[in-house]
Amino acid sequence: MRPLILITNDDGVTAKGIRVLDETAMEFGDVVVMAPERNASGKSHSLTTERPLRVREVKKTEGLSVYSCDGTPVDCVKLAVEYFCPREPDLVLSGINHGSNSSINVLYSGTMGAVIEATALGFDAVGFSILCHDAKADFSQAKGYVRQIIAAVLQHKLPPNVSLNVNIPYNGEIKGIRVCHEAQAKWLDSFEKRTDPQGRPYWWLTGRFECDNPPQTSDEWALTNGFVSVVPIHPDFTSYDAIEPIKGLFQ
Amino acid sequence: MRPLILITNDDGVTAKGIRVLDETAMEFGDVVVMAPERNASGKSHSLTTERPLRVREVKKTEGLSVYSCDGTPVDCVKLAVEYFCPREPDLVLSGINHGSNSSINVLYSGTMGAVIEATALGFDAVGFSILCHDAKADFSQAKGYVRQIIAAVLQHKLPPNVSLNVNIPYNGEIKGIRVCHEAQAKWLDSFEKRTDPQGRPYWWLTGRFECDNPPQTSDEWALTNGFVSVVPIHPDFTSYDAIEPIKGLFQ
Repeated sequence: MRPLILITNDDGVTAKGIRVLDETAMEFGDVVVMAPERNASGKSHSLTTERPLRVREVKKTEGLSVYSCDGTPVDCVKLAVEYFCPREPDLVLSGINHGSNSSINVLYSGTMGAVIEATALGFDAVGFSILCHDAKADFSQAKGYVRQIIAAVLQHKLPPNVSLNVNIPYNGEIKGIRVCHEAQAKWLDSFEKRTDPQGRPYWWLTGRFECDNPPQTSDEWALTNGFVSVVPIHPDFTSYDAIEPIKGLFQ
Repeated sequence: MRPLILITNDDGVTAKGIRVLDETAMEFGDVVVMAPERNASGKSHSLTTERPLRVREVKKTEGLSVYSCDGTPVDCVKLAVEYFCPREPDLVLSGINHGSNSSINVLYSGTMGAVIEATALGFDAVGFSILCHDAKADFSQAKGYVRQIIAAVLQHKLPPNVSLNVNIPYNGEIKGIRVCHEAQAKWLDSFEKRTDPQGRPYWWLTGRFECDNPPQTSDEWALTNGFVSVVPIHPDFTSYDAIEPIKGLFQ
């Protein structure tokens, strides 16, 4: 039986990036897509708790079933695995996201929320992003790397509880793949204060990404220097190094 | 100058848990509260990207300013730090959440999303939760532990890039504090399929928490055995142990 590959994203079911991912994944197996109806960027690991979800069948052809739902990327993974996959997926993919999910952005990203959920459920999972926000971005250079990474993960499997966060440079020739760690960074100046026509204040999300001198072992360094960054991630926030120091606070 | 303590939550500004946290924090310093107007449970690390935010002043007295906004807990932290805190906070607190945020729940939790955001911004931060969903929960036993942990963190400070996820048992006498790691767990049977009066299907979020034989070093073990669990967490998803094995996939 061909591998079953479940695909989602956070840019929505109509995004160009998810179509490129479907096409590439179909070279390797049968594909089920369950993606948000609309853009769900910045939804992180959120769940829809306050209302039920509806699902729409978008397309059904040999080896490809495409659905959309009015939930988050994490909802999509859970719902698809339980109700829309004909068997357990061999691999869960998310993306290709229009815009970077490197470094601290993994925290906010709906694309990566879906990947982390899949990992927590016990599936191999990979999130793909390209460093271009344009809805019409050209994925031709990225596609070869997406293909290579899907092939490697299907062949070798991932370690238990580990998934991959893959970011792909957009401008210039790509030099290869680097396996790295997240760079430490933060978003500053997050909100811009404005005044509405009635003179009342409101605040729009904006922000400036600050990442000073990322080490050569980090994803930011890799991307700035023309490499595809592959960061192994896991769904455990524990700072194991801090357990002993923190015990000292309560003795 | 008294310490400045910024407080948020995900149950909303009117929840009993955040009032208990305000009262306790005011014993240590000046308090600014910026909390979601309405329940924002399950919002994880999500941001409000598609519309601007509005802020409402709820209360202003000596040493206490309370605001609400129509955003997520992470929005609350960013907005408060930039526009509503008279100076940089010495400590950011989130909660007291009505319901557990132990183990894998930290991924979905808006309470902990706020804490992780505060940590990424460079502030000491602690999230508190009690193991009771009741809106009228009795916080009298929990309050002593909340006080003890706030005092310890203000006195000793936390290691860089580390915050605390504190869960407090509800039934029975509490035996003390245990510093531990997240238990590995997952939520299964996440959605219940129903049919509306027009015969169309819809799916409601539900779920069953599965955590088999958590080790004695984990938060689930601590909570089941009557201890307050304190898990040091950090905003970095990298699985450092997996970097070398994953390099093998691309050689």
